[in-house]
Amino acid sequence: MAKFDLLSFGEVLLRLSPPENKRIVRSNVFETHVGGAELNVASGVSLLGLHTGMISKFPANAVGEFARSKVRALNVSDDYLVWDDSEDARLGVYYYESATFPRKPQVVYDRKHSSITRISIDEFPEEMYHSTRCFHVSGITMALCPETRACTMEMIRRFKEAGAMISFDVNFRLNLWSGAEAKECIEQILPYVDIFFCSEDTARLTFLKEGSLEEIMRSFTQEYPIQIVASTQRVVHSPKQHSFGSVIYEAKSDSFYREKPYEKIDVVDRIGSGDAYCGGMLYGLLSSDMDCAKALAFGNACSAIKNTIPGDLPCSDLREVSYVIADHNATGPTMEMNR
Amino acid sequence: MAKFDLLSFGEVLLRLSPPENKRIVRSNVFETHVGGAELNVASGVSLLGLHTGMISKFPANAVGEFARSKVRALNVSDDYLVWDDSEDARLGVYYYESATFPRKPQVVYDRKHSSITRISIDEFPEEMYHSTRCFHVSGITMALCPETRACTMEMIRRFKEAGAMISFDVNFRLNLWSGAEAKECIEQILPYVDIFFCSEDTARLTFLKEGSLEEIMRSFTQEYPIQIVASTQRVVHSPKQHSFGSVIYEAKSDSFYREKPYEKIDVVDRIGSGDAYCGGMLYGLLSSDMDCAKALAFGNACSAIKNTIPGDLPCSDLREVSYVIADHNATGPTMEMNR
Amino acid sequence: MAKFDLLSFGEVLLRLSPPENKRIVRSNVFETHVGGAELNVASGVSLLGLHTGMISKFPANAVGEFARSKVRALNVSDDYLVWDDSEDARLGVYYYESATFPRKPQVVYDRKHSSITRISIDEFPEEMYHSTRCFHVSGITMALCPETRACTMEMIRRFKEAGAMISFDVNFRLNLWSGAEAKECIEQILPYVDIFFCSEDTARLTFLKEGSLEEIMRSFTQEYPIQIVASTQRVVHSPKQHSFGSVIYEAKSDSFYREKPYEKIDVVDRIGSGDAYCGGMLYGLLSSDMDCAKALAFGNACSAIKNTIPGDLPCSDLREVSYVIADHNATGPTMEMNR
Amino acid sequence: MAKFDLLSFGEVLLRLSPPENKRIVRSNVFETHVGGAELNVASGVSLLGLHTGMISKFPANAVGEFARSKVRALNVSDDYLVWDDSEDARLGVYYYESATFPRKPQVVYDRKHSSITRISIDEFPEEMYHSTRCFHVSGITMALCPETRACTMEMIRRFKEAGAMISFDVNFRLNLWSGAEAKECIEQILPYVDIFFCSEDTARLTFLKEGSLEEIMRSFTQEYPIQIVASTQRVVHSPKQHSFGSVIYEAKSDSFYREKPYEKIDVVDRIGSGDAYCGGMLYGLLSSDMDCAKALAFGNACSAIKNTIPGDLPCSDLREVSYVIADHNATGPTMEMNR
Amino acid sequence: MAKFDLLSFGEVLLRLSPPENKRIVRSNVFETHVGGAELNVASGVSLLGLHTGMISKFPANAVGEFARSKVRALNVSDDYLVWDDSEDARLGVYYYESATFPRKPQVVYDRKHSSITRISIDEFPEEMYHSTRCFHVSGITMALCPETRACTMEMIRRFKEAGAMISFDVNFRLNLWSGAEAKECIEQILPYVDIFFCSEDTARLTFLKEGSLEEIMRSFTQEYPIQIVASTQRVVHSPKQHSFGSVIYEAKSDSFYREKPYEKIDVVDRIGSGDAYCGGMLYGLLSSDMDCAKALAFGNACSAIKNTIPGDLPCSDLREVSYVIADHNATGPTMEMNR
Amino acid sequence: MAKFDLLSFGEVLLRLSPPENKRIVRSNVFETHVGGAELNVASGVSLLGLHTGMISKFPANAVGEFARSKVRALNVSDDYLVWDDSEDARLGVYYYESATFPRKPQVVYDRKHSSITRISIDEFPEEMYHSTRCFHVSGITMALCPETRACTMEMIRRFKEAGAMISFDVNFRLNLWSGAEAKECIEQILPYVDIFFCSEDTARLTFLKEGSLEEIMRSFTQEYPIQIVASTQRVVHSPKQHSFGSVIYEAKSDSFYREKPYEKIDVVDRIGSGDAYCGGMLYGLLSSDMDCAKALAFGNACSAIKNTIPGDLPCSDLREVSYVIADHNATGPTMEMNR
Repeated sequence: MAKFDLLSFGEVLLRLSPPENKRIVRSNVFETHVGGAELNVASGVSLLGLHTGMISKFPANAVGEFARSKVRALNVSDDYLVWDDSEDARLGVYYYESATFPRKPQVVYDRKHSSITRISIDEFPEEMYHSTRCFHVSGITMALCPETRACTMEMIRRFKEAGAMISFDVNFRLNLWSGAEAKECIEQILPYVDIFFCSEDTARLTFLKEGSLEEIMRSFTQEYPIQIVASTQRVVHSPKQHSFGSVIYEAKSDSFYREKPYEKIDVVDRIGSGDAYCGGMLYGLLSSDMDCAKALAFGNACSAIKNTIPGDLPCSDLREVSYVIADHNATGPTMEMNR
Repeated sequence: MAKFDLLSFGEVLLRLSPPENKRIVRSNVFETHVGGAELNVASGVSLLGLHTGMISKFPANAVGEFARSKVRALNVSDDYLVWDDSEDARLGVYYYESATFPRKPQVVYDRKHSSITRISIDEFPEEMYHSTRCFHVSGITMALCPETRACTMEMIRRFKEAGAMISFDVNFRLNLWSGAEAKECIEQILPYVDIFFCSEDTARLTFLKEGSLEEIMRSFTQEYPIQIVASTQRVVHSPKQHSFGSVIYEAKSDSFYREKPYEKIDVVDRIGSGDAYCGGMLYGLLSSDMDCAKALAFGNACSAIKNTIPGDLPCSDLREVSYVIADHNATGPTMEMNR
Repeated sequence: MAKFDLLSFGEVLLRLSPPENKRIVRSNVFETHVGGAELNVASGVSLLGLHTGMISKFPANAVGEFARSKVRALNVSDDYLVWDDSEDARLGVYYYESATFPRKPQVVYDRKHSSITRISIDEFPEEMYHSTRCFHVSGITMALCPETRACTMEMIRRFKEAGAMISFDVNFRLNLWSGAEAKECIEQILPYVDIFFCSEDTARLTFLKEGSLEEIMRSFTQEYPIQIVASTQRVVHSPKQHSFGSVIYEAKSDSFYREKPYEKIDVVDRIGSGDAYCGGMLYGLLSSDMDCAKALAFGNACSAIKNTIPGDLPCSDLREVSYVIADHNATGPTMEMNR
Repeated sequence: MAKFDLLSFGEVLLRLSPPENKRIVRSNVFETHVGGAELNVASGVSLLGLHTGMISKFPANAVGEFARSKVRALNVSDDYLVWDDSEDARLGVYYYESATFPRKPQVVYDRKHSSITRISIDEFPEEMYHSTRCFHVSGITMALCPETRACTMEMIRRFKEAGAMISFDVNFRLNLWSGAEAKECIEQILPYVDIFFCSEDTARLTFLKEGSLEEIMRSFTQEYPIQIVASTQRVVHSPKQHSFGSVIYEAKSDSFYREKPYEKIDVVDRIGSGDAYCGGMLYGLLSSDMDCAKALAFGNACSAIKNTIPGDLPCSDLREVSYVIADHNATGPTMEMNR
Repeated sequence: MAKFDLLSFGEVLLRLSPPENKRIVRSNVFETHVGGAELNVASGVSLLGLHTGMISKFPANAVGEFARSKVRALNVSDDYLVWDDSEDARLGVYYYESATFPRKPQVVYDRKHSSITRISIDEFPEEMYHSTRCFHVSGITMALCPETRACTMEMIRRFKEAGAMISFDVNFRLNLWSGAEAKECIEQILPYVDIFFCSEDTARLTFLKEGSLEEIMRSFTQEYPIQIVASTQRVVHSPKQHSFGSVIYEAKSDSFYREKPYEKIDVVDRIGSGDAYCGGMLYGLLSSDMDCAKALAFGNACSAIKNTIPGDLPCSDLREVSYVIADHNATGPTMEMNR
Repeated sequence: MAKFDLLSFGEVLLRLSPPENKRIVRSNVFETHVGGAELNVASGVSLLGLHTGMISKFPANAVGEFARSKVRALNVSDDYLVWDDSEDARLGVYYYESATFPRKPQVVYDRKHSSITRISIDEFPEEMYHSTRCFHVSGITMALCPETRACTMEMIRRFKEAGAMISFDVNFRLNLWSGAEAKECIEQILPYVDIFFCSEDTARLTFLKEGSLEEIMRSFTQEYPIQIVASTQRVVHSPKQHSFGSVIYEAKSDSFYREKPYEKIDVVDRIGSGDAYCGGMLYGLLSSDMDCAKALAFGNACSAIKNTIPGDLPCSDLREVSYVIADHNATGPTMEMNR
């Protein structure tokens, strides 16, 4: 039996944010968070009760230790964190400022030259590839630099070979690479992917897909041996109010899974809510026999809940998510408070 | 003339809460509040200008002193606080975490074995029973333990005998006792009660009443020599938005008092808003010749306002509540700000 | 070419506010801000890229230095700040407490006897009057005391004589003077005014104007050589949600400028949003050839944005305001975040 | 039996301080404290277990209410607080900044025109003068303005006439009045004074006394019917380290009381430590049959302890002060911690 | 090879402390820490690089989860945490207030009835006893209640039987049990103990030892098969300045190990510094072939450093401790800063 | 007459620090400061009353704006700040953690690849070189990268040619370059330097000087046309207690200036105290006719005071520094507080 249910590979960033409603340009303190698309996913799965671990490279200094203790506190294993003790070692940073309408949240990235850009496939032991049921990575890791791209591709191959399921979230970011670059690169790894996260917009703009959302989702599974495609649907009414839902397509049954979206989410911190979807969705699959209905319910609920939590990382255990799912499906009155 | 307009008997708890929107499991600080159903009521009445006091038992340590200074700061007398200097002395604690939709607020209680469970009727002087116009207590005090239950019953008898009005709020809490226990116990004290607070749900589920709300309210006064029954009506649209109204029934005139509810209350902290209703309502009665219309206006306004105030305790003087009542009844434009 | 695009004359106050949602009567800390109608305007213009300066008198102590460093940080020149080293020197203070519905925000003023009340026209060099393209002042400065009133009138005369445009915002405050006083006093300076800010309510109640808003606005330019009249339109749905728009009338073209208002502004701090309008509007005029359409767009956007920013002072550069204007005029989907 | 053991008359100020080690000119928050020489004394006596009350005038606004709730939290009665609802009503403010060597702490006063300057003897009921065993006031109250000076003198006469002991602390402040003014004014009330606090420096510089400290102390009781003279002796090694002791002279026994000073006090906040001495010393006298040895022990301990407590006000109950006295007199090892 | 180097059994408490220099009775926030003698030891060993785990029982609620995430963040395994989902489940709490001279730090305990008092030996799997090289526990765990005492005794037996070294710290607390009780109970387990921590005072007062410290230490190893006895020597100059050293006695070589004490430690938070000694000392032994000189150096340094760190828990990795040891032994000038 | 008294060229960094006594690895907030050797010097000179400006390159984002507003708030001109709008634009960051004995303060640098490394001499107008009386730079700017080194050298030449005095502080940092590199590079610019700051250690270790300090200082002026050499003397008793003094040598009079050092400085934040020395010393020279005695007094006082102020930047105006100098030279008692 595998030691881990999920291993995830990606950069972990230090996020610095002024306290709520305050601004970067006037802030006398920054609240510290850690985050990163893949850590967000791994921690979501872990908080719900499965075993996960993070593959990454951290600077061998106090800032790296800060990040490590956050990873561990989340019950994510640090067995495959490697350490950069070069003089240039750094944890990538980003500054995030929330906003209310009509202003918009703002991100300032300072993630270039971080320790993960000095990562090499040789730093990881062969046994790692045999230690997990599922490997998850996102397009961001591939987009960071040639080193992380090469590592990602090689890890995908090795994990696949060792029998792990491969989960891939496109997570397209125009400030990291162009759509054409992303398409070319991702198409090389799609033959290995089992679970594929791709929004409708990205499918159209980056992969140049056409037709209905359903047609697009099905087409990915026709072109590649992808088992499951998931596509999230967020509506941003204002920075403080969103709606969230998703569609999941299962190839083997040729079925689409949907439920009514979460409406009027009171957003506290939107960052990481897409990753929380992946985390909930993967939990649903991995804690069952790949049950897409369970995956849908957990994905949507985890994402909706994440919007109410400060920081990049989810913070919900199985009981909390189950309560929210039950309320979402309830028809009568529900309790006002958990006590 | 009585020294106090109202004395209230109950437990005072230390509330520990993460700062707004933060979570207990990740919080590096807890904001400290004190609260408790009966203190919330007494302080509301006191802030509006009447003389009130608290009957309770506190641990004889720094945490007890912390609570005492809060009580005094609210203009509630500590003349009838008694002190527990046993080795086990403790102030009950509860952890409260707010939330936004779709999450729900959460309470973790740690109130067992607190100093009030070692209270005895013998600790209070006979003159106490002659010092007030009104005695208020809630079902929570009765539910805590046999000692507080016995004390409550005996105090009600003695205060009544000494000529005080008895006010009782059912405040049913399923985590403290069952509906059947509550019913049996409360029915023993209803023959002494003058003012009775009971929600429609509790009347139906706990007292097994049937019929319309009006019929239910009237029935209590038919079965017992209760003068006034009040029933609040809260609608929880989301953790951050409520509506609030109430109905008051006066037996002697067989009249129901209502007004349009407060709609779209922007909730900052919902805890204690029911108690704030009792406080405002009792202020209305005690500051007039038992004028139920005044009681209704103050009860509703005090509860609505409390939702906008952090902590369990109200924080509004007569001027502020009067302004809110005036605005609630205004038909034309009102000022945007008080300055 | 003038050294400054705008000089502004008025009092700068220290604002003390409990942290969000907390109350003055229970606050263990006050957040510090500086503000004042004219500084709010000058800083708004300055943040957008023009050169501005503040004319005022500050106490020669640490509190005055605190205020000065804030002025400078905003890129507003302190060349014409004069210092009060009398024993009574003080910076005016006001306490501001925000609120949510049904409570209202509250202001407690403590601004009497402040250093600006000891100001004299003789403290300013003649060259000051030749150093700017525009001079802005509001009715508040005139209302404070006889010394500031006399100074305002004389400065208006001298700046006008030196060729500067005169901008005047009525900013009527009933707690500083009566409508009749304001009318009499302001009518003495209207012959010098080029740009006139006056709300419809003030026009009717203070200047006793009648007819439609359009008729009222036009009438000012008929009675006085005023070039441009601006009138803001705020709707307060609740302390946390406003709408904002405005009308600008240009006399020479006999034209009215309007656009759709900003709806559902999520208000964080409403203080200074009227002044932010003046700042944005004056920026629009001064950065163009007195283009009223640009003034309208910047005035409305700056005011709407200010509501989302804690403190009295705006905090938006040209890029941020331009993005909000673009979004306001966009017809298709817009980005959720700036990154 | 008198209702109060001590009534005290004086101004209560709002103190605004940057957090420890921070500076006024750069502070984004101020911590709020209330203080004032006489309140500091009254609260010290009250915390030790006697009944005290404050005579003062507060603004009828939220800032006044803030101060009142602090007074009450300290167990000091607000029965003789009167309220200023004039438009100019204000609570005096002072800004205090701590420092470490070689910098010095800094105070910026903004206390002119405060509500207490509008006080009148007619605002207080005759029964007040019969309600206390002791009346305490300091020279600061006399120095503030003619109104408080007249009030002080008249109150001293009336309290004396009603049989109360009169306690007076010179508390000379050069920024409020000159030495000559102080001397002339204070000499008018010395015939009424029973307990007189005067430092050696003030005795020499203001009252022009000569000779040894002992001769000076004795001389006051020879010239006036003063019973007890107390003189504190502080050595300031650095802003963070003081020593403190005192001498008390009792006229009737012609005795001097001394003990070894508290050495190497680790100063957290020095403000109010002189007043804490008066409080402890008066407690010693009033809780015994005017026992000067007890007064000395409590005066010195209370002052030494106050230096370790943030804010102007003491925070020590009888148990804590007794422990410190016991330790001060202990010869063997003492406990490291109270638990 | 054992999975763990050290397993530790004991209670984990939530510590609530006012911010530095503030007081419990006036505190509007409490900083949250977790601690407990055994966790403090385990985390110290873990931070230095060995594998450790905690044996304890936590409430199955958000407060328990809070504690768990702290345990994990410290790199201490939660494999042997068991969960109490009873209605009474609670994490023990203590309130800690620091102080400066002449005040003393103060602790208020509220740890009765906590979840660990419902622990049973049956909740732990047999394999646990074979998973570690060393088992550590302190007298506090034995003193808490009969359940923890029985568990401790049985665990010691089983771990010993499985071949683990047994480390025991007397950690005598008079508020938990009497000296006689402690003596009787501890003497039952001393036959199993390999490493014994006992201060000179405790040896004399509790175990009624006489003679020199050296004689006392040796005598324990003569009466029981104890290998190593360690005795710490703390001098408390003031709450903010301590000195710290220790003596270690090794039975097999009949040798005493000492070094010059750490003088003039600037104490930030003294809590847990004794446990940090145990942690450093055990690290020294376990990371070497039971080298007492290394144990001495690490024990003393870890304890001295802990005093500079807020909270109960150590926070130093091998590099930091090694630097401090090097400095302690350095004869020439050392760097002012690590950069 | 020159527009500026001093222009300074160097990097400005964002400093992130856990609140006092807290640690980076556990910090949930970082306090934000800006600093940099040359900004520290320029702001010190500016706060004392002269006109200064900063030459640097900032990222064109919110973090750069944050830094700019701090520069301006300090009264340092931003006329010669240039902006980096490249995709890689970043402000250098460093993490600073204070400590108490026996721990040491710790710095983690993350300043590589910052915007200043993309600076070019061509970005600055020719008129800049004619706008100041003095140009100051430190070895740090030269050590950063080839671009800043080339810029520094060219600026020194151009400023010298335009008639400005050249001030140079070696400020040797082993983590930026080797001693040999530094020596070779600095010797190229010494022919242009008028005022030279070099510690005794650096003179010996980097410039390989021998002999007494006096001989070393004189030798620099013999080898190069240096007018004044200054050498600071810091003694670090513990992280919280330093002593500070300096020696200044004036070549033209062949005189050494000294005064008694500041002893027992209570250090709050040591960072920037060396730069504060340069700032005070340059103020002394530039505000007089190059009076070395004044320079010595201001240099020593400014450095001593800086140690008491949080952050890298000084915060003292002329009045404060003058008071500290007066106290330092006082022979009798001094005031305990400034009020």
